[in-house]
Amino acid sequence: MAKKAILSYSGGLDTSVCIPLLKEKYGYDNVVTVSIDVGQPEHEVKTAEDKAKKISDKHYTIDAKDEFVQNYIFPLIKANGDYEGYVMGTSIARPLIAKKVTEIAEKEKVAAFAHGCTGKGNDQLRFETIFRATGLEVIAPMRELNLTREWEIEYAKDHGIPVAATKDKPWSVDENLWSRSIEGGRLEDPNFIPPEEIYEWTVSPEKAPDTPTILEIGFENGVPVSIGGKKMNGVELIRELNKVGGKNGVGRSDLVEDRVLGLKARENYEHPAATILLKAHKDLEQLVLSRAELKFKAMVDAQWSELAYQGLVNEPLYEDLNAFIDKTQERVTGTVQMKLYKGNASVVARQSPFALYSEDMVSFNSQTINQKDAEGYCKYHGFQARMYQSLKRQNK
Amino acid sequence: MAKKAILSYSGGLDTSVCIPLLKEKYGYDNVVTVSIDVGQPEHEVKTAEDKAKKISDKHYTIDAKDEFVQNYIFPLIKANGDYEGYVMGTSIARPLIAKKVTEIAEKEKVAAFAHGCTGKGNDQLRFETIFRATGLEVIAPMRELNLTREWEIEYAKDHGIPVAATKDKPWSVDENLWSRSIEGGRLEDPNFIPPEEIYEWTVSPEKAPDTPTILEIGFENGVPVSIGGKKMNGVELIRELNKVGGKNGVGRSDLVEDRVLGLKARENYEHPAATILLKAHKDLEQLVLSRAELKFKAMVDAQWSELAYQGLVNEPLYEDLNAFIDKTQERVTGTVQMKLYKGNASVVARQSPFALYSEDMVSFNSQTINQKDAEGYCKYHGFQARMYQSLKRQNK
Amino acid sequence: MAKKAILSYSGGLDTSVCIPLLKEKYGYDNVVTVSIDVGQPEHEVKTAEDKAKKISDKHYTIDAKDEFVQNYIFPLIKANGDYEGYVMGTSIARPLIAKKVTEIAEKEKVAAFAHGCTGKGNDQLRFETIFRATGLEVIAPMRELNLTREWEIEYAKDHGIPVAATKDKPWSVDENLWSRSIEGGRLEDPNFIPPEEIYEWTVSPEKAPDTPTILEIGFENGVPVSIGGKKMNGVELIRELNKVGGKNGVGRSDLVEDRVLGLKARENYEHPAATILLKAHKDLEQLVLSRAELKFKAMVDAQWSELAYQGLVNEPLYEDLNAFIDKTQERVTGTVQMKLYKGNASVVARQSPFALYSEDMVSFNSQTINQKDAEGYCKYHGFQARMYQSLKRQNK
Amino acid sequence: MAKKAILSYSGGLDTSVCIPLLKEKYGYDNVVTVSIDVGQPEHEVKTAEDKAKKISDKHYTIDAKDEFVQNYIFPLIKANGDYEGYVMGTSIARPLIAKKVTEIAEKEKVAAFAHGCTGKGNDQLRFETIFRATGLEVIAPMRELNLTREWEIEYAKDHGIPVAATKDKPWSVDENLWSRSIEGGRLEDPNFIPPEEIYEWTVSPEKAPDTPTILEIGFENGVPVSIGGKKMNGVELIRELNKVGGKNGVGRSDLVEDRVLGLKARENYEHPAATILLKAHKDLEQLVLSRAELKFKAMVDAQWSELAYQGLVNEPLYEDLNAFIDKTQERVTGTVQMKLYKGNASVVARQSPFALYSEDMVSFNSQTINQKDAEGYCKYHGFQARMYQSLKRQNK
Repeated sequence: MAKKAILSYSGGLDTSVCIPLLKEKYGYDNVVTVSIDVGQPEHEVKTAEDKAKKISDKHYTIDAKDEFVQNYIFPLIKANGDYEGYVMGTSIARPLIAKKVTEIAEKEKVAAFAHGCTGKGNDQLRFETIFRATGLEVIAPMRELNLTREWEIEYAKDHGIPVAATKDKPWSVDENLWSRSIEGGRLEDPNFIPPEEIYEWTVSPEKAPDTPTILEIGFENGVPVSIGGKKMNGVELIRELNKVGGKNGVGRSDLVEDRVLGLKARENYEHPAATILLKAHKDLEQLVLSRAELKFKAMVDAQWSELAYQGLVNEPLYEDLNAFIDKTQERVTGTVQMKLYKGNASVVARQSPFALYSEDMVSFNSQTINQKDAEGYCKYHGFQARMYQSLKRQNK
Repeated sequence: MAKKAILSYSGGLDTSVCIPLLKEKYGYDNVVTVSIDVGQPEHEVKTAEDKAKKISDKHYTIDAKDEFVQNYIFPLIKANGDYEGYVMGTSIARPLIAKKVTEIAEKEKVAAFAHGCTGKGNDQLRFETIFRATGLEVIAPMRELNLTREWEIEYAKDHGIPVAATKDKPWSVDENLWSRSIEGGRLEDPNFIPPEEIYEWTVSPEKAPDTPTILEIGFENGVPVSIGGKKMNGVELIRELNKVGGKNGVGRSDLVEDRVLGLKARENYEHPAATILLKAHKDLEQLVLSRAELKFKAMVDAQWSELAYQGLVNEPLYEDLNAFIDKTQERVTGTVQMKLYKGNASVVARQSPFALYSEDMVSFNSQTINQKDAEGYCKYHGFQARMYQSLKRQNK
Repeated sequence: MAKKAILSYSGGLDTSVCIPLLKEKYGYDNVVTVSIDVGQPEHEVKTAEDKAKKISDKHYTIDAKDEFVQNYIFPLIKANGDYEGYVMGTSIARPLIAKKVTEIAEKEKVAAFAHGCTGKGNDQLRFETIFRATGLEVIAPMRELNLTREWEIEYAKDHGIPVAATKDKPWSVDENLWSRSIEGGRLEDPNFIPPEEIYEWTVSPEKAPDTPTILEIGFENGVPVSIGGKKMNGVELIRELNKVGGKNGVGRSDLVEDRVLGLKARENYEHPAATILLKAHKDLEQLVLSRAELKFKAMVDAQWSELAYQGLVNEPLYEDLNAFIDKTQERVTGTVQMKLYKGNASVVARQSPFALYSEDMVSFNSQTINQKDAEGYCKYHGFQARMYQSLKRQNK
Repeated sequence: MAKKAILSYSGGLDTSVCIPLLKEKYGYDNVVTVSIDVGQPEHEVKTAEDKAKKISDKHYTIDAKDEFVQNYIFPLIKANGDYEGYVMGTSIARPLIAKKVTEIAEKEKVAAFAHGCTGKGNDQLRFETIFRATGLEVIAPMRELNLTREWEIEYAKDHGIPVAATKDKPWSVDENLWSRSIEGGRLEDPNFIPPEEIYEWTVSPEKAPDTPTILEIGFENGVPVSIGGKKMNGVELIRELNKVGGKNGVGRSDLVEDRVLGLKARENYEHPAATILLKAHKDLEQLVLSRAELKFKAMVDAQWSELAYQGLVNEPLYEDLNAFIDKTQERVTGTVQMKLYKGNASVVARQSPFALYSEDMVSFNSQTINQKDAEGYCKYHGFQARMYQSLKRQNK
């Protein structure tokens, strides 16, 4: 009986050489490849498909962009997703890719999963926590075989795998609807100033237009639904903001990030829509959530972000945190006006029917509260602090 | 025997009318005034002094700028001080002002403290938690008497208090070395876009120079000590960054903030040095602190900021948090390069002798760790999450 | 038109004198009294009713025991409710009492609320945060008039209010289904050992039976549903556990507690059912929740408890926390065996269909994990910690 | 040149067979053994030494009891050390053992570390995070070789290693000054009620004396220094409390615990001194720390406990947390009276010169605060909560 493996396939050199490797080194005689479209450049999806059709036994291309937005990006916006300053595009796409691959795996009745990650990064962890839930074997040829790029190219040629003529970039890139990451090579040195050429989604602030763009983002229940009053579906809205944000030089980050295994790594990212939406969302929350909610939700958001960064969307805690977050978002409805200008994205105005602020409100309360009441409050403010200071003097 | 009160004096109309009010309405026959210089405009300090000399029984002007930097601003930088997006200039100056006034109060053997705050804001709480520790009476005429501006002007004239001819601004301003706040009037409406004229420290990004400024900030033990390699004392360094930041349109905020008593208020701030230093400091921390430290310190910093915002620097918890923070800052030494450009302040490079990253480090670990080891780690990543998913399927 | 006030009525001296006071000192000509049965001794409810019928203009007695259990006690169990070691009986009953009084207030179209709390404790805060939401006036005669007990007795006699002959206890007691609190008098001194006579629900451990009682508590979705396999409704189940726990000397606490206003107070409590149920519930959670959930839920529970202690069940954060908690409780189903013996309540065994533990589970995982895999994990455990130690040596 | 390994040696079968294994399977020709005395039974230390002298090339026995108390147990008391209900005896001893072994390793210039842990538990992680900091190889024969007990006995006999005649216990035990743990065999089933015979330090509550023991524990700066007014050194004091506590049946736990790798395990422990000291310490903290400190320190303590459980005392965060904790403990000085009776340890009274409570204090504050002031406080209590409820009604 045929031994079948399934491979998460990007079309790049690494995952391409995995196909013959799975047969020659791991003894599989049938390799199914799957490419998931989460908003990477369309030509990448197309190239992967074309290539796979030549070299794998069966190929699937799955359009998961809507699912990506609804079930991964929108929850991230509601959670103000941010891991050490990173908006987590790659992190939240991996579990979705793994889930879709697992769905095909069940249909295809495979005996093993394979992926092209090395043993140094985060992606192996994000893929495998989903794959391993099936109880099937997981194969990571790049992690196990310590191959050089030269060897891979030679091996690819020997096995009729087309190798792109383009010279290798000195850094590696990952791209989806939510962000584009650039890492590796000289960028690894945290003290090296990255050259302008690493960026593709954003112009440099210096090259952005001399007049600002004003945008009004509409939110319903914590989720963006319109730009300038025009309703848009999620994929469309994010693409539009990536375009207009990028044009204004908005949405770059440069940071030192702690990978799951413990290595610190310098990373560069582009994410215009993410920058705009996260700022707008947070600002709207400050208008509608109570102070107690804002304070506690900051901890919830941080925990959510840690799980999301690690790919642990299968943790029961992830569901619990989402229950908390969704409850708070019932009131995160309203509009936020933003000004985009040469790299800046600033909130300039906001409104909501659920604002914990209104002239009416203030006057409503002024029926029962007068200035004098603050005196009583003052007397209790820092009550124990004053006792402590007094004791400190006594015990000196 | 003469009944003496001490008044925290700014030179404005409110605190000026307090002087005769304390005598006529509260029965004090001697009013000592104190003005604390925490970096507000020099002419303000001068005007207050000149005025006080005419209308109070005795006046003190205290230069507390160095103490402000060393004991209030530097701890704030180490704590990444941030309350709902606000860098807390006014908040951290109030306890210092109260402390200095209390020192004079002891010397002058007064019977009561007075301040000019109303019953709506935060400052009454910040002043009184310090004043009340003495056990003496605290008087807040503005809170108690519900006076109108017209009445105050009339009353001032009757009592020989000079009233500034300048027309009243439709918003109120507070200014010190660390920040300038603008609030009130039409700005209160969170959906009103503030006019450019409210800003004085910063030009609008549109008017900033067309070429960026690159700055290298040096830190030692969490505290900024140099710009471009040139050692500077704290007051000088902050002034310099306010100047160069402001020129580049850096350091404005526009936010809805939860006051201590519970009202949400729209606030606008300017703080170029704060924006630059807080970004640089946080970035350097990400290079030197462990992931576990960064995660936990975020909670420590949030708690520190809440206490600081409320003026509770006399809380024993404040000292405990500082002990934690100071321990972490022993390694926050190094340099951060920042690019200022038309409203942006971005970190572009950073280095430290304590970086938890170095090529040496990586190679040191590679002696004992190889890629294959990550496989074992992967198998345990999300271990309970997988159990949970399996149970969920079983119990369906 | 008649001016009507509504009074939360306990039947005690304080609330009884409030009735004529509201008329004579506050100008109301109609006082409606309401007593809420939350499980206090039946004779108390009866006495209050009898008394009220004589001295108030209209009286309501509302049986809220089921609502107390379903909407207040059960959420507390799910949240492992604990404020500084206190199981919060009084705290969680107050908002329910206030809510029921408010319901009658709407029906009766009153102009004001009144309660009998002084200005020193927590209950005024818990009542008023509910009452004040109506925008109506709130009157607290005991807080405002500084009355002595002697004056009250005299005044009661003058107004035909029956005064109980029983000599006044040197401490004050509050009692409902969930707990009995004893405070005041000599008990206030934290270093005074309380006499045995303060306890009524529990025998002293020394007087408890010489043989242990073994109980099996059944939980469904975080809520107790059975004892020894016998299904019981909430009120019945709690009463039964108060009886059997009390007989075994289980459920006393003696602690120094921080009141909302800042005073520390020594408090003594009895709560046999609470002790048993909270221990059993927490133990069951440790069997079914993931480590990540247990760790984070501890913070959620602490925040829940703080809100509950302060009576802030109307905070939106309270609803958000409950959404988190309810999600976790979907799996808190199973049985816990407890041994009660002379003051001890110890868990001795537990089981659940949702246990994140089972022999099957362990063997399921052993298909894909072997001992050797732990080596890889070990190499990354403390990775940054080792880097830090190495840097520390280098920088010495 | 001779290849030398160092082995952390307990004297048991596992670590004993490691000696010839290191030579025969791993190619070392010299094995140094080290036993660290952290308060395990004296005969165990003696047996290990006698045995080692026969079968290893060189043996060290190090008395680390004082260091264990000063640098590991006392910090744990100050941190209210508690991981999911476990007082962490084994966890905090491992890093000390590893540290002492590392010290000898440097002196002996060894090439590798060895330990006898399997790949299932926590101890491998705790040892190796210390050992691996040296950069030397770490060998775990039990984890790598999958040996059966029968094979080990046979192998031991072949290599002249004395094998204890006593029949193997169906559970495994670890013991030091702070606690005794019992795990494995049938105990693993969380629903199996443990037999009385697993306990050695504590009598069953049923067999404890019929009259209570009253103890007064004295603390200085968070650390116990006396019993009944008699000053004692740490080792002596803990031994005394283990004796008197054990005699009264105090200090057993039975719980389901999350191991570092993710497995839940049922564990039983005995720790009379720990139970008494942790209860007393926490109670004293409630008397002297402010509410804000108590609330935040609970999170600090939880984080401390997690690190301690995982053996990560080399994490920089561990030092930061200790800086916070030590600051708070400056006032944790005073006495606590406890009643021990048939399994119960209850605080009955407490006092401290730093109590944030005193009749004087209360009267000090009453100079400036009167009951009426609470009204102002009440009006702001739940201010945003009331706004929220009002908005909710409006938006329905």
